[in-house]
Amino acid sequence: MIRVAIIGASGYTGSESIQILLQHSEVELTYLTALPEECGAVEDVFPQFKGRCALPIEPLDIDKLSDLADVALCCLPHKVSMGFVPKLLDAGLKVIDFSADYRLKDVDIYEEYYNVKHTDTANLARAVFGLPELFREQIKGAVLVANPGCFPTGAVLAIAPLLKKDLIETSSIIVNAVTGASGAGKNPSDKFHFPNMNENLFAYGIGTHRHMPEIEQIASDVAGKKVTVLFQPHVGPFDRGILSTVYCQPKKNLSNEELLLLYNDFYKDEPFVQVRKDAPAVKDVTGTNYCHIFVTCVKGKIVSFSAIDNLVKGASGQAIQNMNIVFELEESLGLK
Amino acid sequence: MIRVAIIGASGYTGSESIQILLQHSEVELTYLTALPEECGAVEDVFPQFKGRCALPIEPLDIDKLSDLADVALCCLPHKVSMGFVPKLLDAGLKVIDFSADYRLKDVDIYEEYYNVKHTDTANLARAVFGLPELFREQIKGAVLVANPGCFPTGAVLAIAPLLKKDLIETSSIIVNAVTGASGAGKNPSDKFHFPNMNENLFAYGIGTHRHMPEIEQIASDVAGKKVTVLFQPHVGPFDRGILSTVYCQPKKNLSNEELLLLYNDFYKDEPFVQVRKDAPAVKDVTGTNYCHIFVTCVKGKIVSFSAIDNLVKGASGQAIQNMNIVFELEESLGLK
Amino acid sequence: MIRVAIIGASGYTGSESIQILLQHSEVELTYLTALPEECGAVEDVFPQFKGRCALPIEPLDIDKLSDLADVALCCLPHKVSMGFVPKLLDAGLKVIDFSADYRLKDVDIYEEYYNVKHTDTANLARAVFGLPELFREQIKGAVLVANPGCFPTGAVLAIAPLLKKDLIETSSIIVNAVTGASGAGKNPSDKFHFPNMNENLFAYGIGTHRHMPEIEQIASDVAGKKVTVLFQPHVGPFDRGILSTVYCQPKKNLSNEELLLLYNDFYKDEPFVQVRKDAPAVKDVTGTNYCHIFVTCVKGKIVSFSAIDNLVKGASGQAIQNMNIVFELEESLGLK
Amino acid sequence: MIRVAIIGASGYTGSESIQILLQHSEVELTYLTALPEECGAVEDVFPQFKGRCALPIEPLDIDKLSDLADVALCCLPHKVSMGFVPKLLDAGLKVIDFSADYRLKDVDIYEEYYNVKHTDTANLARAVFGLPELFREQIKGAVLVANPGCFPTGAVLAIAPLLKKDLIETSSIIVNAVTGASGAGKNPSDKFHFPNMNENLFAYGIGTHRHMPEIEQIASDVAGKKVTVLFQPHVGPFDRGILSTVYCQPKKNLSNEELLLLYNDFYKDEPFVQVRKDAPAVKDVTGTNYCHIFVTCVKGKIVSFSAIDNLVKGASGQAIQNMNIVFELEESLGLK
Repeated sequence: MIRVAIIGASGYTGSESIQILLQHSEVELTYLTALPEECGAVEDVFPQFKGRCALPIEPLDIDKLSDLADVALCCLPHKVSMGFVPKLLDAGLKVIDFSADYRLKDVDIYEEYYNVKHTDTANLARAVFGLPELFREQIKGAVLVANPGCFPTGAVLAIAPLLKKDLIETSSIIVNAVTGASGAGKNPSDKFHFPNMNENLFAYGIGTHRHMPEIEQIASDVAGKKVTVLFQPHVGPFDRGILSTVYCQPKKNLSNEELLLLYNDFYKDEPFVQVRKDAPAVKDVTGTNYCHIFVTCVKGKIVSFSAIDNLVKGASGQAIQNMNIVFELEESLGLK
Repeated sequence: MIRVAIIGASGYTGSESIQILLQHSEVELTYLTALPEECGAVEDVFPQFKGRCALPIEPLDIDKLSDLADVALCCLPHKVSMGFVPKLLDAGLKVIDFSADYRLKDVDIYEEYYNVKHTDTANLARAVFGLPELFREQIKGAVLVANPGCFPTGAVLAIAPLLKKDLIETSSIIVNAVTGASGAGKNPSDKFHFPNMNENLFAYGIGTHRHMPEIEQIASDVAGKKVTVLFQPHVGPFDRGILSTVYCQPKKNLSNEELLLLYNDFYKDEPFVQVRKDAPAVKDVTGTNYCHIFVTCVKGKIVSFSAIDNLVKGASGQAIQNMNIVFELEESLGLK
Repeated sequence: MIRVAIIGASGYTGSESIQILLQHSEVELTYLTALPEECGAVEDVFPQFKGRCALPIEPLDIDKLSDLADVALCCLPHKVSMGFVPKLLDAGLKVIDFSADYRLKDVDIYEEYYNVKHTDTANLARAVFGLPELFREQIKGAVLVANPGCFPTGAVLAIAPLLKKDLIETSSIIVNAVTGASGAGKNPSDKFHFPNMNENLFAYGIGTHRHMPEIEQIASDVAGKKVTVLFQPHVGPFDRGILSTVYCQPKKNLSNEELLLLYNDFYKDEPFVQVRKDAPAVKDVTGTNYCHIFVTCVKGKIVSFSAIDNLVKGASGQAIQNMNIVFELEESLGLK
Repeated sequence: MIRVAIIGASGYTGSESIQILLQHSEVELTYLTALPEECGAVEDVFPQFKGRCALPIEPLDIDKLSDLADVALCCLPHKVSMGFVPKLLDAGLKVIDFSADYRLKDVDIYEEYYNVKHTDTANLARAVFGLPELFREQIKGAVLVANPGCFPTGAVLAIAPLLKKDLIETSSIIVNAVTGASGAGKNPSDKFHFPNMNENLFAYGIGTHRHMPEIEQIASDVAGKKVTVLFQPHVGPFDRGILSTVYCQPKKNLSNEELLLLYNDFYKDEPFVQVRKDAPAVKDVTGTNYCHIFVTCVKGKIVSFSAIDNLVKGASGQAIQNMNIVFELEESLGLK
């Protein structure tokens, strides 16, 4: 059994990871940590785990961690994570990091968008971007996996086949996405106060969302050249899920049949990507690690739709998929 | 034109009051006040009023208030309100107070449930309880009206005819109510954070809710003797509305026809109470000042259902209904 | 008093029209009609109007209509409406028609998108497109107003200033919109069954939505030349509102300040369009006839956001705004 | 591996059963059936299973069933089920039946409440009521298990310890429950059309709900004497979950500590019942087979709160719990 610790277990990605791991047959959850003020019996932090998980949530003790775990799912927020990841690695663990701290390879872009100096560029250099459908081979031997952002996961899977085959203008891409409100995390705020968020929908991060450069980086990796993306996120009155509607300009005319063939071929061996013949709905993937995609031509443009659950394929599920790959387990364990 | 000020305009009952008064033909909104940190152009506090209300929200200045307004809708929270109401009255205004500070006639009960010393018992003595369907005559000449709590409004209207006619055991009453989340007010909190409150429903205030003694006081007033009530509130994933399901033990058998007749007769001249022949739904009254009621016998008990909008008949609408009565305007102005 | 009939009163736009007209000081609601199987006391069809509206909903009788009303709000569905509008006009009424039957000036496009032969081209020719912000002068003397579609209202208001001033590439426009579920109308269906639609969001009408040619027609009218638009609607788990996110390619660089100035100037006399300095949220306009707009530059493109309530500014409110204009009443009566 | 068939797989309890069985390590899903018009690839009926379940949904063929399965989860509706269950049993399968057809032991009550003649009283006699926490021993050897209704599961678990110990007046029990909208099943209807059900809450089945006699039957079984229950269900705007608030009159005073001790003791060996020290929320149990309970004294009455997921502990999860018991598997397999 692989022994798993969750660092920063008290948030939504922490509880989602616990939920998935309870059903995982080849791992054992051994250690849960959080900030001191968020510690306690797991049932006091997450009533849904009463009777299901006997572990307490404790302040992090690196020695204890080193004794108890083979791998850490590090659910700490951006900027905080890079202060802890070196210690986790030094303690001999493999690390799947949920934050953005090890995703952006260009330190300048990181520092611009996150407005902080990067303090662990050594590990940044060896971190592998954990989108298995595109980077599975590198993940296999990785010690540190940067688990992708939720929006980049949905957006890039929606257009990777087009980018790979150089079929679209790389300056034409518009990603319009709508996420559920859990994307905002667990801390209460005015905008996400129920009577404000309910029956509401709005755009945010206009021109400034931190997932924009992340999408551009991966898209460029896939395309083998610089890709620019206009990414516009919105948030709607539902818990989970991201629907990405991606508009792009084809370099030459493609029929819907050619597009379907291309996507089916590209994703034919992928357990968690399903290419559909109709538009995916957010609820088709809620609670699962799947990404559903539909691609079609409209008015001379290609429109690709992808749906994921932001907390599963967009966070905890993908992290556990990465963990399975790193430890050479069956990739879909715990995620069926 | 009656000139109206709203004191504590920056919360949900404040905005609801503004919304209603914009459609009121006989009043003019002249002054909006709030705590300094919540002041600004009304559109900055409430984007929905951009272009509709030119008044700023300002810190309260009593002299200005005295010059500008004939009546104050005082939307301050419990405990805070009794610090301001004497000043509003001294400034020569009539006051419709939304807080609980002038509702409970028994100071000991107030102090027990609100855990604070009452500092304005003089005005408490002359305050009129503003449930027009039961106390219209007293409201007519009132200088200070204590606008009822949302739950007491729905609960007491549901059983007033039974209490008045002494038809039920006064120790048998159980009020099971479900409110929308706006009942919690505008301040963000864990429980009302969208991803926590959405798709959720739970009981709260078990045995301790402050509306329990208020319900008992009014019910006792109506019955002319002491009434005890087990009041159990719940909150559900919707913005507005309260459904009260009230169970009571009849003293003698009553047919459904007798009950319907009794209720129709009791409320026959009431513009805002509608006695129905089927169960009311919360959405039937959303955004209106109406209370819909259905009463029936089940298994030897009487079950009465009432639906109101907690922000309208349960707060701002009823306040304006009271204001209309105080100023001898048509009672339904602004509330059609 | 203008006497108003609502033809096809039993749907969502019918009830919304009733709701608004109850607060309108210069009109009298005199006649409500529907298909025989949807008739009855208004409170039996719409419990929310119990005690508020004494009119029954009756099968249409043209003679009665002719006696009772000066204007008809015709809320019939597409294809059905053009069978009735000639009779309403012959009966001497002015007509505000909610359907698409009189919106598309090019009969071929109408017949292609609606898959039916147009049977009233004579009235089509004299119908005025009822978007007051763009066509107020023509509406003033109109006998038949084609009330705009909900999506075209939001989409075109978002970019009219750009089109008017010839500032964007007319083949570059992408309208990504999300509507609330009331847009689907009142008839139950699998997709809009609560447990299916709740917590869900999906695209529909991909490449085929009937509002696409309508948007193109108005946009072309405003631009004075042919405009093509890629329109992609989505539906989300909320009752009301449309957020349109419109992407376009500027012909030359424009600063955010220039855009704001342009929009403020274009809409400076419009009571129902509010140009904002931040992104509008659907809930800012819910229940109102307002359109909130924000426009900005991102990555070399212009992105314009507009929010409306699909049942008010997108249907019944705009119809009453049109009615006010036709009858030379104050344009905002009933809509404050 | 136990081979499982799902009869009537095309509804909500069918999909929930598939979902759970995909994670069950000791069973194999071998056969899915439905009415001919609801058959097809599983992904065409349930897009969420694309790539996860390769079985088609087919019209029922009893011979095929007999070859393919050891046990049938029979998800057919009331009245239909008793036409099929005898055939399933004759085919040599064990049956977990989701309908009410084998729950009510008193045929007269069944025929009164379901308004149909019972056509399979022979099997009714040997059916075991599948509430494991109360009837585990009988379930162990059962050939036919009547899976309980959702409301009875929540309601009876909330008060079983009190009934067992004869601590409450058996004519005093009021069960006030609120269910999520999935309880209405998958067929669209006016009341459950999204724009009607959303932001709404209402009572239904007043005095007539079919779960009332079922609750009374089990409660009487537990108490060892006749128990009457006033059961009042409501439905709210959320997908899943039932919160039951049960009011009863104690025969003698009990402290909260005594109640907690009693409940903890009664449920101490139950994996799926968690006795809490605070009020359970629906969302604490969503997606799980758990029942959370809190019991307390208020105003001389005992109030017990229970939360379950109506589709899991109230249907498919409990069915699989029963299946596990029948086949002597670990009771929580697939349900962690």
